[in-house]
Amino acid sequence: MAKPIVTLTTDFGLSDHFVGVMKGVILGICPEARILDISHAVTPFGIAEGAYLIGQAYGYFPPGTIHVVVVDPGVGSARRPILVEAARQYFVAPDNGVLAVVYSREEHKVRALTNDRFFLKPVSRTFHGRDVFSPVAAHLAAGSPPRQFGETLREYSWPRFDQPRQEGRNSWTGGILHIDQFGNVITNFSSGEFSQLAERPFRMSVRSRNIRAWAENYAEGRPGKPFVIAGSSGYLEISLNQASAARFLGCTIHDPLRLKIS
Amino acid sequence: MAKPIVTLTTDFGLSDHFVGVMKGVILGICPEARILDISHAVTPFGIAEGAYLIGQAYGYFPPGTIHVVVVDPGVGSARRPILVEAARQYFVAPDNGVLAVVYSREEHKVRALTNDRFFLKPVSRTFHGRDVFSPVAAHLAAGSPPRQFGETLREYSWPRFDQPRQEGRNSWTGGILHIDQFGNVITNFSSGEFSQLAERPFRMSVRSRNIRAWAENYAEGRPGKPFVIAGSSGYLEISLNQASAARFLGCTIHDPLRLKIS
Amino acid sequence: MAKPIVTLTTDFGLSDHFVGVMKGVILGICPEARILDISHAVTPFGIAEGAYLIGQAYGYFPPGTIHVVVVDPGVGSARRPILVEAARQYFVAPDNGVLAVVYSREEHKVRALTNDRFFLKPVSRTFHGRDVFSPVAAHLAAGSPPRQFGETLREYSWPRFDQPRQEGRNSWTGGILHIDQFGNVITNFSSGEFSQLAERPFRMSVRSRNIRAWAENYAEGRPGKPFVIAGSSGYLEISLNQASAARFLGCTIHDPLRLKIS
Repeated sequence: MAKPIVTLTTDFGLSDHFVGVMKGVILGICPEARILDISHAVTPFGIAEGAYLIGQAYGYFPPGTIHVVVVDPGVGSARRPILVEAARQYFVAPDNGVLAVVYSREEHKVRALTNDRFFLKPVSRTFHGRDVFSPVAAHLAAGSPPRQFGETLREYSWPRFDQPRQEGRNSWTGGILHIDQFGNVITNFSSGEFSQLAERPFRMSVRSRNIRAWAENYAEGRPGKPFVIAGSSGYLEISLNQASAARFLGCTIHDPLRLKIS
Repeated sequence: MAKPIVTLTTDFGLSDHFVGVMKGVILGICPEARILDISHAVTPFGIAEGAYLIGQAYGYFPPGTIHVVVVDPGVGSARRPILVEAARQYFVAPDNGVLAVVYSREEHKVRALTNDRFFLKPVSRTFHGRDVFSPVAAHLAAGSPPRQFGETLREYSWPRFDQPRQEGRNSWTGGILHIDQFGNVITNFSSGEFSQLAERPFRMSVRSRNIRAWAENYAEGRPGKPFVIAGSSGYLEISLNQASAARFLGCTIHDPLRLKIS
Repeated sequence: MAKPIVTLTTDFGLSDHFVGVMKGVILGICPEARILDISHAVTPFGIAEGAYLIGQAYGYFPPGTIHVVVVDPGVGSARRPILVEAARQYFVAPDNGVLAVVYSREEHKVRALTNDRFFLKPVSRTFHGRDVFSPVAAHLAAGSPPRQFGETLREYSWPRFDQPRQEGRNSWTGGILHIDQFGNVITNFSSGEFSQLAERPFRMSVRSRNIRAWAENYAEGRPGKPFVIAGSSGYLEISLNQASAARFLGCTIHDPLRLKIS
């Protein structure tokens, strides 16, 4: 039988012992687990970005994979830890919307993690990645069935990060989901729903800069001139040919976007 | 039998081939080893920070785990490589104090690594992580017993990084062990020994800023106002609610701290 | 039988889901693969730096290791993906010179990756790390013989990154291959070919600074005074004792070097 795969997505960074400790806890409970990192560079407390990153990744993992997603500004408060079954995989996370992209794409079942015999005791107030999410993932990897972890929930947090707000007949306000390693700015405009940009004049605005160019691939873009492209993410991206669009535009993940189609 | 776990803690960063090469060397000798990273972002030559990070992590690993800790400004000089047995685990490191936190907490046996048949030849002057520490860890993981690596030492380096200096009846000078991903400033004041801060007026000073607030959890802190908290590290930490205390205070790992209790 | 080792070297960074997705794809095809990172911090589009890093690393891996090297500014264009056999190991990469250091040191056989039954379909225009290089590496790891992937090539890209240009009888223009974690500036002057620097007066110039000091080891260098050293890389390096030479000199990987030997 293939060994269980456990992936980790957090805002813990790689400078601290946090991620290593999570892996130690997992291997202590399930020595057979294969542990992989998706990203630990989610902007601190960036729930939408975490939702974006796990949404991009899970589809490339085999059935049975267990994804631990810890972007958790509410750690120690009343927000619940949950276990989600979707796409024949598992997701262990706080109930704060960090799985919203998975919910939007897949049928899913959400359980509250209430059975504390799967937790590391005593549960700290500040590090549930270690004390709750990792041991739960490891027990799941070791074969404990999902129903043992807690009851199914009917209500849970499901923000719509990936839906821009329509402001007028042809105008929207959106946001930035992520800025990738190459400085591509991933917007929350779905490439599918906004495919008309390839054929009609438009204006995407960020930080008082207007982008009106469309490109089919990165190499097609004129040097020094940002363009919009339907990237591999499934969202419209603002890019520059062989340079960082984010740095060129001076924008960060917190900047709003405006789109107007003529 | 569970496969041997080898963890790595270094100041090598992840930009270079250094860490990947250490893993290649380990797998060449012990193909069964499970290799995990604790951190490779120790401040270059930061022995106290390395001691802090491995001290935070080892307790969450199963018996038999082998921890390789390479923060080694003296590489190529006379400082000895050592193998330490403590807490039913193993530690392979230079004898420069980077295991001081482990020594403070656990009974331990320290050996000099003198048997060079476990080294990669020729041993370079600059990269003992590859030529000494990794192959020793791998041979240990593959089953060579500790006594084959060298004799027990009675004297070895044991600096007291985690003990502030008492200056007066109610005043101490301390230091910063680590600044974590969220900008929490981890001091070298033990939460246990300084638990009276929760109940008595105090003043923690850094960079000519005074912190007088205490919080029981992060969410309790007032926005924009740094506070002292007994963090999950076991040390007093200076924190800010949902923001970086280190950036707010403009402090770095090299800044001294002053504590006065009224 | 030892499990197949797959290493990854890219310019994808660790902030995105890219590297995690490559690992998911590999494990989906070859669950037994051991996946290790060499570096994901190659300067974006830095082919020479990628060539340097894999050139430094591969020699420390056991026979049969499969190295995936994706520094690929031409992704989506006509550049071919290739599979190289050298040193009893495998290299999967774009044909853009990123394996040049391997070519210079080892007998090698280069194949075009033309058999698209080993690719993930549909192949995107922007992410061949996921769609071409990872699945090819995984099928190789799972036992598909190299000849099934495509025909041998007689012509392929082989730039000479590691050869400075001779300008006069005793003067050369060279470049920087890499700046490591400690700020050591790794030049493209081979330590072996330029060993006379240890014995004769010389001047290495970068950013209008002249370096004339030679050191046999790092500790020998005078504080605040950069020196040239034959580092563990096999190339001349510009270094500073316990400080970053690159920061001190204000140089980046793009700066030219000039060497004059008296």
